[in-house]
Amino acid sequence: MSAPEAVVFVVGDELVDARRNDTVGPALARRLESIGCHVRSRSVLPDNVQAIVSALTQALAAEIDIVLIAGGLGPHEDDRTREAVAQSLGIELELDPKTLHRLEENYRDRGRDVPEGVRRQALRPRDAETLPSPSGTAPGFIVRRQRSLLVALPGAPREADESFTRGVLPLLRRSVAGGQTTATTVLRVAGLLAADVQRALAPVMPNSEAVRVNYLETGGEIELLLSARAQDPDEAQQQLEQVVANFESRLGGHVFARGKQSLTGVLAELLRARAWTLASAESCTGGLIGKRITDLSGASEFYVGGVITYSDEHKVRLLGVAEDTLERCGAVSAEVAASMAQGCRERLRAHVAVSVTGIAGPGGGSADKPVGLVYIGVALPDATRVARHTFGGERDAIRQWSATAALEEVRRALKDMDTLGQRVEPSEPATSLR
Amino acid sequence: MSAPEAVVFVVGDELVDARRNDTVGPALARRLESIGCHVRSRSVLPDNVQAIVSALTQALAAEIDIVLIAGGLGPHEDDRTREAVAQSLGIELELDPKTLHRLEENYRDRGRDVPEGVRRQALRPRDAETLPSPSGTAPGFIVRRQRSLLVALPGAPREADESFTRGVLPLLRRSVAGGQTTATTVLRVAGLLAADVQRALAPVMPNSEAVRVNYLETGGEIELLLSARAQDPDEAQQQLEQVVANFESRLGGHVFARGKQSLTGVLAELLRARAWTLASAESCTGGLIGKRITDLSGASEFYVGGVITYSDEHKVRLLGVAEDTLERCGAVSAEVAASMAQGCRERLRAHVAVSVTGIAGPGGGSADKPVGLVYIGVALPDATRVARHTFGGERDAIRQWSATAALEEVRRALKDMDTLGQRVEPSEPATSLR
Repeated sequence: MSAPEAVVFVVGDELVDARRNDTVGPALARRLESIGCHVRSRSVLPDNVQAIVSALTQALAAEIDIVLIAGGLGPHEDDRTREAVAQSLGIELELDPKTLHRLEENYRDRGRDVPEGVRRQALRPRDAETLPSPSGTAPGFIVRRQRSLLVALPGAPREADESFTRGVLPLLRRSVAGGQTTATTVLRVAGLLAADVQRALAPVMPNSEAVRVNYLETGGEIELLLSARAQDPDEAQQQLEQVVANFESRLGGHVFARGKQSLTGVLAELLRARAWTLASAESCTGGLIGKRITDLSGASEFYVGGVITYSDEHKVRLLGVAEDTLERCGAVSAEVAASMAQGCRERLRAHVAVSVTGIAGPGGGSADKPVGLVYIGVALPDATRVARHTFGGERDAIRQWSATAALEEVRRALKDMDTLGQRVEPSEPATSLR
Repeated sequence: MSAPEAVVFVVGDELVDARRNDTVGPALARRLESIGCHVRSRSVLPDNVQAIVSALTQALAAEIDIVLIAGGLGPHEDDRTREAVAQSLGIELELDPKTLHRLEENYRDRGRDVPEGVRRQALRPRDAETLPSPSGTAPGFIVRRQRSLLVALPGAPREADESFTRGVLPLLRRSVAGGQTTATTVLRVAGLLAADVQRALAPVMPNSEAVRVNYLETGGEIELLLSARAQDPDEAQQQLEQVVANFESRLGGHVFARGKQSLTGVLAELLRARAWTLASAESCTGGLIGKRITDLSGASEFYVGGVITYSDEHKVRLLGVAEDTLERCGAVSAEVAASMAQGCRERLRAHVAVSVTGIAGPGGGSADKPVGLVYIGVALPDATRVARHTFGGERDAIRQWSATAALEEVRRALKDMDTLGQRVEPSEPATSLR
């Protein structure tokens, strides 16, 4: 069968002009694509019945297979999705006594007054099927209309995801995918540019319609969203594992996680396993590495702190980099990166220290040392590694890539120690100094 | 007249699942709202002629006043917006010789080969009016169709904005806004929560249809987007200035800029004016303040660096905070914030130092010191100020608000010095320590 078509709507005045950023729509679009749907449009709509009705009516008239709408199911006056769905289908809303009961109980269990709007939350279009809603808020629902499946989901990201996974996905796999099942997974890659990843994967890129590969690049990391569709679940899983194996072999050690784990999370595990501490010494990233590490709650277990040495004077004063080295090699050099990492490790008394020095631009570049040139140092108990990178793009992108690459260099150094024992080989292209 | 209605489409496969974030659509939606249009939907569409045609056809059938579409005007095979517009209008594409000539010249001027796709870029639907395109890439165009104005814009953010401002805005002001003109401005606020701003402004909130106020909250800053519409440009401007004056008087010194300037940019100016340097000492923000400051290229002129002291031990070792103070008052206290700022100022030899210590959560809170409690210290040559804040929300939001509040405290301290001379009053609620 040809791929089913889908449209995604998310409702909220504050999303239209991005006073708040819509994360739910893109997440739902990715989930739909991962099971083989084609997303024909993804829209945000204001809290306006007319606008919602008009959007839904057009989608139904175009016989779109899956019409997803998220948000506007709350207890407030301006939560109008239920009404709009009913109007666009030309059917009535009716009270779902079971849902009302469950919502009321929920408020009471939490010792809170039942709000006036709770009855509104228990309304649903006639013939709609109520979706599971484990977190106890207003549930979504599904209505079938000729070729189309109209699905209304809660607007909060976690609840939308949960409702979709538990209530919608099984149904879509059965009814839309023509009995086929889809196996999905995510590979997370750091330390490579998107172009490098594409080049590396080209020879093993699956050319079957049933296997899909999507890239998502954020803050210097690359996510590979993989899915395989087949009649039989085992077959789908097997296809998927084959792709994973091919990709992993081509990408070497750069796949740092499969699934949701963040690079910092993986690094945290490696450090905790050794009961080791980490410190950072940043120049061009100006605090971004520290910020990334401490995004993780509980980072204090392994991260002791860092220094931001934005001036040469402070590289000398706070990290003990030799003035002579700065003069001879320049602040952006393998030697200074190594010396920063070593100084940081000693002065902050950490087991490992990571350093970054580079040219984030837009100014400050030269033919010898262009904008985007970044050296990363990793000081370990027995060795210091330095890696050289050249990143493209604007200031912000260069800084994000640098921070990711720094965390990745630490991760690889620790992995190599696991493999090679305490003696660690310098990374490539690298300078080993000590 | 009633407000004109608009829809915004942006074209690009990678925008649908947010592999790349769409900034053009929200920006265009805000521009339209700022001149009094109602945006009925904002959508991203894949690079697929059918999907684009279907979206445009529906918008035209619904007699939407302004149909904006951005992107898909490039020289590549998958740039299909021109074709889709022509199909949805049922008219032909024809070559615009002037545009072709200009594009070819442009490539030659830059010493580059004329690409094959250049002829495609010079096509436009019959009767379309070509929009100015100062940066020399493929220009957008406008077509009228009964009640609707269909506008195609380039997809790059800067070019979309420029085309809109120069080619579309004057036309909309004339033809859609019924001859009225709109004056717009932005007030930027820091150091206050959105709820505080709303409470403060409630008594002076304009209740005229002709004046619009939109909020945009990002990373702990609040932008107030203001617009006033009137028949006469002077009248519009006068109305706007009245709103600005009312708002500024209610928000005290918390309006840090009017227009585009960032908080860091304003701070940089204040520091440069005195030829002063800044240093940072961060605990719960873990490097975010340094990151924010160094987002500004050229920050090295005034920012010398900072320390991230995530552990108590490092607050003592790197900043000279007394162990006794840590034990007596706890790491999250006014005393420790003051001591961190003073230690940072002395050890990093800066004119001003800012410190943050707080509980970002989700763990680590208590009844006395809840998650969200944050102390900010500012050490100046003659005084140290400490401010206490309590922020709501999740870990990331608390950290973003803390970083913004820290920069804002430095800005206010410098402003107060300008007003009061070298003696600086402690901020409120505050502890003055020295």
